[in-house]
Amino acid sequence: MPSNYPPENISPDQLNSILTQIKDYQTNHGSLLKVIGSETPHSVHLQPVSASVFPTVFPRRLFNEAVDELQLIYNELYCKLAEDVEWLHAVTGPLRRTEPLVDALWSVYEDVQRRRQDEGSQYIEQRVHAGVFRSDYMLHVEGDSADSDDDDDDDDEEVNENWTQNLCLKQVEFNSYSCAGGCHADKVADMHRFLARWGLYDFALESNEGREEQVVNTKIPLSTLPKNSSINGIASVLASAHKIYGSKPHSPKATHTAVLMIVQPNNFNIADERPIEYALWNWVDDDDPIATYRIEWQLVLDHTKLTPTGELLFFPPESGDSTTASPVEISVVYHRAGYEPREYSEVVNGKQIRTRLELSRAIKCPSVLGHITTIKKVQQVLTVPGTLGRWLTKEKADKIRGTFVEIRSLDDVMSSTKNLEEEEELAENYILKPASLEGGGHNIYGTNIPAFLKTLSPDSIPDQSAYILMQKIRSPLNVYGMLMSSSRGVVADEVVSELGVFGGCVWERKESSSDRARCQVIENRVVGWSFKTKEVNVDEMSVVKGYGCFDTPFLVD
Amino acid sequence: MPSNYPPENISPDQLNSILTQIKDYQTNHGSLLKVIGSETPHSVHLQPVSASVFPTVFPRRLFNEAVDELQLIYNELYCKLAEDVEWLHAVTGPLRRTEPLVDALWSVYEDVQRRRQDEGSQYIEQRVHAGVFRSDYMLHVEGDSADSDDDDDDDDEEVNENWTQNLCLKQVEFNSYSCAGGCHADKVADMHRFLARWGLYDFALESNEGREEQVVNTKIPLSTLPKNSSINGIASVLASAHKIYGSKPHSPKATHTAVLMIVQPNNFNIADERPIEYALWNWVDDDDPIATYRIEWQLVLDHTKLTPTGELLFFPPESGDSTTASPVEISVVYHRAGYEPREYSEVVNGKQIRTRLELSRAIKCPSVLGHITTIKKVQQVLTVPGTLGRWLTKEKADKIRGTFVEIRSLDDVMSSTKNLEEEEELAENYILKPASLEGGGHNIYGTNIPAFLKTLSPDSIPDQSAYILMQKIRSPLNVYGMLMSSSRGVVADEVVSELGVFGGCVWERKESSSDRARCQVIENRVVGWSFKTKEVNVDEMSVVKGYGCFDTPFLVD
Repeated sequence: MPSNYPPENISPDQLNSILTQIKDYQTNHGSLLKVIGSETPHSVHLQPVSASVFPTVFPRRLFNEAVDELQLIYNELYCKLAEDVEWLHAVTGPLRRTEPLVDALWSVYEDVQRRRQDEGSQYIEQRVHAGVFRSDYMLHVEGDSADSDDDDDDDDEEVNENWTQNLCLKQVEFNSYSCAGGCHADKVADMHRFLARWGLYDFALESNEGREEQVVNTKIPLSTLPKNSSINGIASVLASAHKIYGSKPHSPKATHTAVLMIVQPNNFNIADERPIEYALWNWVDDDDPIATYRIEWQLVLDHTKLTPTGELLFFPPESGDSTTASPVEISVVYHRAGYEPREYSEVVNGKQIRTRLELSRAIKCPSVLGHITTIKKVQQVLTVPGTLGRWLTKEKADKIRGTFVEIRSLDDVMSSTKNLEEEEELAENYILKPASLEGGGHNIYGTNIPAFLKTLSPDSIPDQSAYILMQKIRSPLNVYGMLMSSSRGVVADEVVSELGVFGGCVWERKESSSDRARCQVIENRVVGWSFKTKEVNVDEMSVVKGYGCFDTPFLVD
Repeated sequence: MPSNYPPENISPDQLNSILTQIKDYQTNHGSLLKVIGSETPHSVHLQPVSASVFPTVFPRRLFNEAVDELQLIYNELYCKLAEDVEWLHAVTGPLRRTEPLVDALWSVYEDVQRRRQDEGSQYIEQRVHAGVFRSDYMLHVEGDSADSDDDDDDDDEEVNENWTQNLCLKQVEFNSYSCAGGCHADKVADMHRFLARWGLYDFALESNEGREEQVVNTKIPLSTLPKNSSINGIASVLASAHKIYGSKPHSPKATHTAVLMIVQPNNFNIADERPIEYALWNWVDDDDPIATYRIEWQLVLDHTKLTPTGELLFFPPESGDSTTASPVEISVVYHRAGYEPREYSEVVNGKQIRTRLELSRAIKCPSVLGHITTIKKVQQVLTVPGTLGRWLTKEKADKIRGTFVEIRSLDDVMSSTKNLEEEEELAENYILKPASLEGGGHNIYGTNIPAFLKTLSPDSIPDQSAYILMQKIRSPLNVYGMLMSSSRGVVADEVVSELGVFGGCVWERKESSSDRARCQVIENRVVGWSFKTKEVNVDEMSVVKGYGCFDTPFLVD
C-alpha cells in the first residue's frame, strides 16, 4: 500500500482543479443522476453521481480471485438453483405467509404453470433463460482481530505486506435480479483511467512530496487500474439471448424482434439503464443492431399483448395509438423493475404484469425462479454444511465456501440463545437482514439489533423467520480515501470498499430427474464489475442514496 | 418538403415519450449545459441543451453546396487574409480609436513584432498557423418577395418544388476565432440519427396519419440526416498542427509537448469544449494520444513561462506548486477565450496574456492576425466589388460572392442618405451590427434601427464607422419545426434555421512580395457543421441564451 495516499496536503486551488476535472468528465460522459423532482416535460436537472476523487487501494490478488475464479462458480450455482424448483420452494416457500414479495413471486410461478396446463392452452414454453448476476464482496481481516498496527512509520513496508497477506474476500450478498450499478461503474472506471493517463494523480502526488523516491512510490500506473466494460458486458448477455430467440418474428403481425427492458417509472437513475439500450442499438457483433425498447412497469399491460401461442407483442408508447401501429415481437425481457413488494399491489396489477411477461415465449432475464434465488434466505441456507454438493463439485464448492461468513436464521438463534438482546457483544458482530429482500437498504446494524428485537413478538416464529443474522465482515483498518458526493461534499477519511462482480449466463432447462442435469448452461461469463467505497463510519453503501461512491480499485500487490 | 411535418396531432402521452427519449439521450451523452450559479466545489447541476424535437427540413442541394464547395474557398480566403497584414490594417486599423478590442489585438500584434526585433532577442518565430473557422448561412428567397403561396393544399407538390428551387444560401457571418457549437452540433446530430434509427419519427408519423400512402411519405430515412463529426474534425486540426510542431520538446526542462486550450473561467458551456480535449487524449491516428490541457484566461501568466527562445512552458494547476513540478511544452495554443473587450482590461493583464501566447513558439490556432479577420468590418469590405481578386481566382471569387448580402458601412450610408432614420422601409430590410464584434448578441434589428441611430451623434464619424448595415436575409415561409428548450418549453411553430460549416486549416507564412504567395496553405478541410433553428419571430439565434436550438437538417430534394 503506498504511503501518504491519498496525499494530505493538496492546496485548495489544486484540489479545485482536480474536482473540476472530475465534474466535467462526469458531465460529458453521462455519469449523472437526475435531481429528484426536477423533471418537467421539456427539461430536467442532473448532477454527477458520487465518485471517489482518488482510486482506493485493493489487493490485486483478491480482485483477480473474485473476477477470474469465483464468479464462474457462482454463476453456475445460481443457474442451477434457478431450475431447482423443489429446493427453492422448500427454502423460500415458508416465507410466503409473512413476505408479500415472496408470495407474489410464487403466485406468479404457480399461475403460469396452471395456465400452461389449462385445457386448450397453446402457449409455447420458453426453456432458455438468462441472468445478469452480481456477487458483492468486502475485504475481511482473517484471524482474531483487525490489524491496528499503524503506529510505527518505519515499518510501513512491512505493514503493507501484512495488510494484503491476511485479507480475504467475504461475500456480502448475491444478486440475481435487476442488478444495478454496471453502467456507472463502467464510466467511473473509464474516468479514473482517463485521469491517470492525463497525469492528474502524478501531478497531484508529485507536488505533494518533493523527494524523488516518493514520486516513484506514489504514481498510479495505468496497469494498476483495471479496465471495466460492464455496459457492453451486460448488453452482451441480452445479445446472446436475443440471438437464440432469433431475429425473425414468429408472429406474422410483428415487424421485427427486440429486447424489452422493464423499468420503474420516473427513475432518477436513468444513466444506469439507458447505456445498455444504446449499446444494443449499436451492437455490431452480428450483422444488425439489436432493437431495444423500454416500458415502465405499470404500463406493461397497456402496451403488450400475448398471442395465443405466447409471443409477446409490444406497442411502443412513442407510436401513439397502439391500434394502428405495427407491434414488435419481444425476444428478451430484461427486468429492471418488479423487485419491490409495492410493485405487486393490486393497484398496478403487478401479479398480472409479471404473469404476462413470465408466460410469454420471450427469454426472461431472469425467470421468476431466477428472481427467487436472490432472496437472502437462499444465501443463508447455502451456508449450511453439505448444501452446495447438490449442484457443485467438491472443488468448486470449497472455493466459494471460503467467501461465506456465518449466516444464521433468526428463529434458530432465538431458540438457542434466549437472551440475544442482552448479548451486546454478540450483536455487535452481526447484521440483521430481512430474509426476503435483497439490497442493503433494510438492514439493522450491530448494536441497534437488540432494541429492534424487542419490537418483535418473542414467540412469533413467522416474524423471526423473516430475518437472518449475518456475521459482520471485519474490514481492514487504515485504508484511506477521498470521496466526492453532491450530498456529503468532499471527504478524506478512512474508508471501506465493496467489490461487485457481474456475471452473465444463459441456460436451458432440461427434463431430468437428476438435480444437477436439469440445467444446461449455454453461456457462463464474467461481464464486468463495480467498486464502491464509503466512509468507514457509514453503515450503508447505497450510492443513489448518497452514502457510497463509485470508485476504481487501485490494485496493489 | 413532406406535408404535415412535424405531425400536428401527437397525443400528450406520445409526445411525452418522445421528449423523455431526447432528455435521456442528452443526459447520457453529455449534451448539456451547466445551470448557471449551481456549481460548488463538489457538485454542479446540468440541464439538456436546447434541441429540436424533429429535425428541420433543409434543401439537400444547398447543404451540399455549403459543405462541398463553399467552405474550401472561404478557408483559403481567410488563411490568406490572416497573412495580409497591410490589408487587414488598412481595413480594421481605423476602428482602433473607438473599439477597445480591435485596439487590443493590434497592440498585441505590434508588441510582439517589437519584442522580436529587440536587440538580443532570441525568440524563434512560429510561421505555421492554424484555424478553426465557421461560416454561417441562412436560406434566402430569391426574387422580389418571399413565397407566401400556402393557400392551396392540392398544390403541395408544386409548392415544395418551388420551395427548394428559388432558395439560395446567404452568409450571416464568418467566424475565425473561438468558434463554438461544434461539440453540441455533433452530439445532437448523433441523437437525431439515433432516434431515426430507433424508429421514433416513424412511429410518430405513422400513427398520426392512418392512410398507407401518408405513412410512406413521412418517414425520415437515415440517409436524409447527414452525419456530423465536428468533435473529431476540430480535434484533427489541432492534431495536424501538433504533429508539425513535433512530439519532442525543444526545451530540456519539459517532459513532453501538448496542446493547450485557453478558456474562459467558469464556462457553463463546458460540454462544447471538453470533448475536444477527450478526442485528442484518445487520438489514435498516430502512435500516441495527444496530451491536451486547459487553462483559464486569467491564470495564463501564473501557469506559463517563456524560455529565452520562446518555448511556451506550462505548469498545470493540478500540479499544485509549480516550482517543484515538471512543465509541459506547448505545441499548439487553441483559443477559446480572449474575444471580449473586458478580457483585455488591465485588471486581468489581458494584453500581457495574449502577447505571451502570441510571442511563443507554439502554433497559434489562430494567430492574432487570424483573430482580426473575424471582425465584421472585414466581412463588409470583402463585399466591395473587386476586393476578392486580391486572393482568389475569378471562379472561386464568383462562387462565394453569390452568398454575400448587401453590407454597407454606416458612415457611407449616413453621408448619402441623410434621413435614414425616417426611412422605416429601408430600416426594415437591414440589421445594424457592431463592426468590431462577431456573434449575434449585439445586433439591432430592423425597425429598432431608426430609434437607435437617434442616440448616435449625427456628425460623429467614429461612432458611425463602428457599425455596419447588413441586408436582412429573406427566409422562406412555411417551414415548421418543433423545438424543446429548458427556458421556452416545447414549441411547435414556424421556424428559421442557420447552417454553420466548420473549416479547418493549417498554413505557413512565406516571405514574398506578392500578396497571394505570402500564405502557403498546408491543410484545407471541412471538419463538420452545426445547424441551429429558432422560432421565426425570435431575432437572435444564440442557443446558450435560450433562443435557438441545436438541430439536424432533414435534407429534402
